[in-house]
Amino acid sequence: MDSKFLNKMGITLDLALEAREIIRGETGQEIPGVRMDRESYDNANVTIVHIEDEAAQTIMGKPVGTYVTVEAPVIKQNNQQAHKEVTEILAEQLKKMIDLPMESNVLIVGLGNWNATPDALGPRVVDKCLVTRHLFNYAPQELQGGMRPVSALAPGVLGLTGIETAEIIRGVVEKTRPALIIAIDSLAARSVERISTTIQLADTGINPGSGIGNKRAGINQETMGVRVIAIGVPTVTLAAVIAQDAIEKYIQSTGGQLGDASLAIKKVLEPFGGNLTVTPKEIDTLIEDTAQIIAGSINMAMHPGISPQDYAYYLH
Amino acid sequence: MDSKFLNKMGITLDLALEAREIIRGETGQEIPGVRMDRESYDNANVTIVHIEDEAAQTIMGKPVGTYVTVEAPVIKQNNQQAHKEVTEILAEQLKKMIDLPMESNVLIVGLGNWNATPDALGPRVVDKCLVTRHLFNYAPQELQGGMRPVSALAPGVLGLTGIETAEIIRGVVEKTRPALIIAIDSLAARSVERISTTIQLADTGINPGSGIGNKRAGINQETMGVRVIAIGVPTVTLAAVIAQDAIEKYIQSTGGQLGDASLAIKKVLEPFGGNLTVTPKEIDTLIEDTAQIIAGSINMAMHPGISPQDYAYYLH
Amino acid sequence: MDSKFLNKMGITLDLALEAREIIRGETGQEIPGVRMDRESYDNANVTIVHIEDEAAQTIMGKPVGTYVTVEAPVIKQNNQQAHKEVTEILAEQLKKMIDLPMESNVLIVGLGNWNATPDALGPRVVDKCLVTRHLFNYAPQELQGGMRPVSALAPGVLGLTGIETAEIIRGVVEKTRPALIIAIDSLAARSVERISTTIQLADTGINPGSGIGNKRAGINQETMGVRVIAIGVPTVTLAAVIAQDAIEKYIQSTGGQLGDASLAIKKVLEPFGGNLTVTPKEIDTLIEDTAQIIAGSINMAMHPGISPQDYAYYLH
Amino acid sequence: MDSKFLNKMGITLDLALEAREIIRGETGQEIPGVRMDRESYDNANVTIVHIEDEAAQTIMGKPVGTYVTVEAPVIKQNNQQAHKEVTEILAEQLKKMIDLPMESNVLIVGLGNWNATPDALGPRVVDKCLVTRHLFNYAPQELQGGMRPVSALAPGVLGLTGIETAEIIRGVVEKTRPALIIAIDSLAARSVERISTTIQLADTGINPGSGIGNKRAGINQETMGVRVIAIGVPTVTLAAVIAQDAIEKYIQSTGGQLGDASLAIKKVLEPFGGNLTVTPKEIDTLIEDTAQIIAGSINMAMHPGISPQDYAYYLH
Repeated sequence: MDSKFLNKMGITLDLALEAREIIRGETGQEIPGVRMDRESYDNANVTIVHIEDEAAQTIMGKPVGTYVTVEAPVIKQNNQQAHKEVTEILAEQLKKMIDLPMESNVLIVGLGNWNATPDALGPRVVDKCLVTRHLFNYAPQELQGGMRPVSALAPGVLGLTGIETAEIIRGVVEKTRPALIIAIDSLAARSVERISTTIQLADTGINPGSGIGNKRAGINQETMGVRVIAIGVPTVTLAAVIAQDAIEKYIQSTGGQLGDASLAIKKVLEPFGGNLTVTPKEIDTLIEDTAQIIAGSINMAMHPGISPQDYAYYLH
Repeated sequence: MDSKFLNKMGITLDLALEAREIIRGETGQEIPGVRMDRESYDNANVTIVHIEDEAAQTIMGKPVGTYVTVEAPVIKQNNQQAHKEVTEILAEQLKKMIDLPMESNVLIVGLGNWNATPDALGPRVVDKCLVTRHLFNYAPQELQGGMRPVSALAPGVLGLTGIETAEIIRGVVEKTRPALIIAIDSLAARSVERISTTIQLADTGINPGSGIGNKRAGINQETMGVRVIAIGVPTVTLAAVIAQDAIEKYIQSTGGQLGDASLAIKKVLEPFGGNLTVTPKEIDTLIEDTAQIIAGSINMAMHPGISPQDYAYYLH
Repeated sequence: MDSKFLNKMGITLDLALEAREIIRGETGQEIPGVRMDRESYDNANVTIVHIEDEAAQTIMGKPVGTYVTVEAPVIKQNNQQAHKEVTEILAEQLKKMIDLPMESNVLIVGLGNWNATPDALGPRVVDKCLVTRHLFNYAPQELQGGMRPVSALAPGVLGLTGIETAEIIRGVVEKTRPALIIAIDSLAARSVERISTTIQLADTGINPGSGIGNKRAGINQETMGVRVIAIGVPTVTLAAVIAQDAIEKYIQSTGGQLGDASLAIKKVLEPFGGNLTVTPKEIDTLIEDTAQIIAGSINMAMHPGISPQDYAYYLH
Repeated sequence: MDSKFLNKMGITLDLALEAREIIRGETGQEIPGVRMDRESYDNANVTIVHIEDEAAQTIMGKPVGTYVTVEAPVIKQNNQQAHKEVTEILAEQLKKMIDLPMESNVLIVGLGNWNATPDALGPRVVDKCLVTRHLFNYAPQELQGGMRPVSALAPGVLGLTGIETAEIIRGVVEKTRPALIIAIDSLAARSVERISTTIQLADTGINPGSGIGNKRAGINQETMGVRVIAIGVPTVTLAAVIAQDAIEKYIQSTGGQLGDASLAIKKVLEPFGGNLTVTPKEIDTLIEDTAQIIAGSINMAMHPGISPQDYAYYLH
């Protein structure tokens, strides 16, 4: 798939991993200023993409920073033990990225529209997070040794509130002064296989053009005044991307050249208009399971002294 | 698209209209034993396909009977007035097909899984239907002149109940002896454009292989012992169908021959396996609006003496 | 509280335990034909009331049979470990009452209205039960050694379906031939303290006058043709009962006689009309937690070979 | 009922109407500095209580301002036409109180916990409000003549977010600078009959001690820097209040004196502890219907140029 073509179609590659693959595919060699590490587990592969300078930022279309991708097809299966392992792997990656003293306030922000299932991941994660900031005002001693002051917000989307999401968050940040924001968001993927099987952590926050909702202003260090970690999961893909993949695979299977075909492909895809977005029919279960895994890993990373059995005691 | 290919992929064409288009496309002429009428309205086109004999039944892969298709892209828009018109058009078609005296009992059956949004249409319709059968036992006089005894059931799916859906319905039919069943179901469409814009009424009931859920036994005159009208709406499509359409359009745009390409196409589609099913990301709103239209038309067709403003009085 | 008065007010005592307390209170001695056992646990008290003959049946207003009451105020607390203990205690009592070979089919019936939170306990339990009957048709060998064929149904209420609940269940029973029905229902309690803290198991099924919904016909051996175990939990109480308790306590505190006051009490309670029914404002959480405990105990009693960690694998 | 007793029990009278009744009941004459007007309609009575000076404020326990109470028992009935009339009456009262030019921004705030049905009124109203502020940035001309820039927020409760509700609202107010806040809240009533049949508009905002949630800081002109209109509806009452009413009515029916009995009453009520809060068992329907009426009246008052049939076009 051609990165210029994607741009023309208005398709953003939300995953750094996918962006790198496509750009490397075009040039055939590693992108200068991009470095990659891999870790491998029974039920997940972890890839860490470092975008190290502004040249790489321009090529990749993503800000300088670290992008951790956890690929775990097992999320699609009804396997509670495997989900637990993915949760722990994600928690470890999150802990490394957070790197904050225990007394620091953290604000969890669940982006997206709770009325549209494929866009409801953020609000569902917020619903399952252990919120503790208010407890610190009343019983600080008891809570020492393992719990961190955490607050949480699902600000909705522009169509629901009439207010830019970034404005709401910024208003709350100014009142509550967190040391860090963790923002959860639904993404668009280039491949159907990635939907709800890939989780990306990025220390660069959320930047214009990402996600599937109405998020025009970025939610990042620059706009919020504090560090923002973004957790993103693909929950939709574009019909045009399915169509293009199919045509390309067909051309390859017949020994043809993609380059020669690009005009014809473009014409065929026109009716799809870049915005016919689809999601698997199992989306309700996928969102529920993914929200459980992400919230679980946030709870572990935030409150190392509380065991998962005791979460219910603190949950609203 | 090749009907034999669809069969090999395990794809059933739930809409008689689509089946006819594809088969005609292959032969270039009207199918013997198939007759078609059309009606045109401001906000909808109505097509009535009559499958008149067993030869036509074999070719079409659908039982002898009448299939009314209402195509109304306006369902996707937030236009309450247009939705009202579609509701009235559908109510008129339903009235013609029902053709029953006012005192006859009717059982509404909402098929599908209420926990999976794209499969929840049937249960949502049931939730909005005016149920009156129990009122007739207590106040028959007041209710004369415009209300019919209606009962309603959302039997769930095999995975939720452990019981074949047809068994549950058959058990209830034997106890309540309705004169007619109206069964609402989610369908799979060949084209993404049909999702939640096309409504099919069929006086043949629901037959094995239809729908998107786990419905192995048919729900029809033969299995239920009473007439069954099926109301179906496409809510999903197969990724393989999007892919195939794209490849075919590409081949046509380059002046190639589909016939020569069929082997290559088949190979490209293999990873899609016939079962990667997708739905638009706006599916929550689409199901809600479609359920409103179908339930509204059923209420009008069932209870001609009750005005829509008074439904609330009778609704649970 | 006077049992005759309750009858006049149309108040049924759904809990055998409460019926016995009130009747004993009036006579000051054990009721002939009624026998009682007690078991005591860290987080629950279990009382087993045996109604042994027809004379006792008449006095108690409940059929001959065994009524096991688990009283566990800890259900109201956010204490996952204590909830687990209550689940296990309930599972043990249920196992004793079920007393069936492993190959016998069991039908779980969740009574009540899923749209009214205080009446939604039954449907919520059904939603969390491990349904396995359909698996036995496909993979009997793998499933041997610890799993039982279980089906489940939430038949709704008369106002939602237009059909008597007992008719629906009877229809399904005739098709699926279970060896036992377990029916879950919301009850009305005499005291607010009992709401969602008391669980009653009865081997007599559900009998006319019980519960808070529209259940006119009984769901018992006589009407269903198979044994019925009822699991009931108080989720509402009557404002008139709160009022009466208060007046009686006031009279006692002033040294007055209840007998003399009964006419005055009756007049004061008239505006309450026997049907102003209330529920705690925390009802959403209470229903969720109670449904979790009951479904957990049913799953343990039904499928002794499956560990709770593996339920997710089988759950829809 | 004795106002001092209520204070001792920690019971706040959220309705100015109830506060006035009780205080007048004690003194037998109109309270100085309190003025009252009445309007009467087919389906509703409107009472306007003016608290005019600080002396009256102290006696009433409510700030100087105007309190409009709409009493409409018809809300409890399934009568769509009557609900429409109540909506229009409420819209007229709201228009008078708002008194703003069309171009002024208004922020709707739905207070309360969406996970607890009796406390979910505010969030449900927000969900049904026509949100338009974001449209003004893109198509100002078309929208002139009848639409006002409205934004909306459901900030949750302290236990869900870890943040004081007033802090969240204040943060959003500073970013969006509305000319007015309309805050919707669930209240506690002194009488069960008022639940979801009485709606209070107050131009004094929400003040500490009101409502059923965790709202410690006020949401009023002083804390927000803009005018706040509060719309409150009783959705719960205290079991202790039901009990006390019953005892008082009993004493009156026997010709006794309340004053002499106050100590005995107090002792009887002790176990109720002031915090056993109950709600009718039909609370799901009551909240839904009341939210529909309040949102309808807000939409009418905000957007006089948009007819209710066209709301769907603008609704998310």
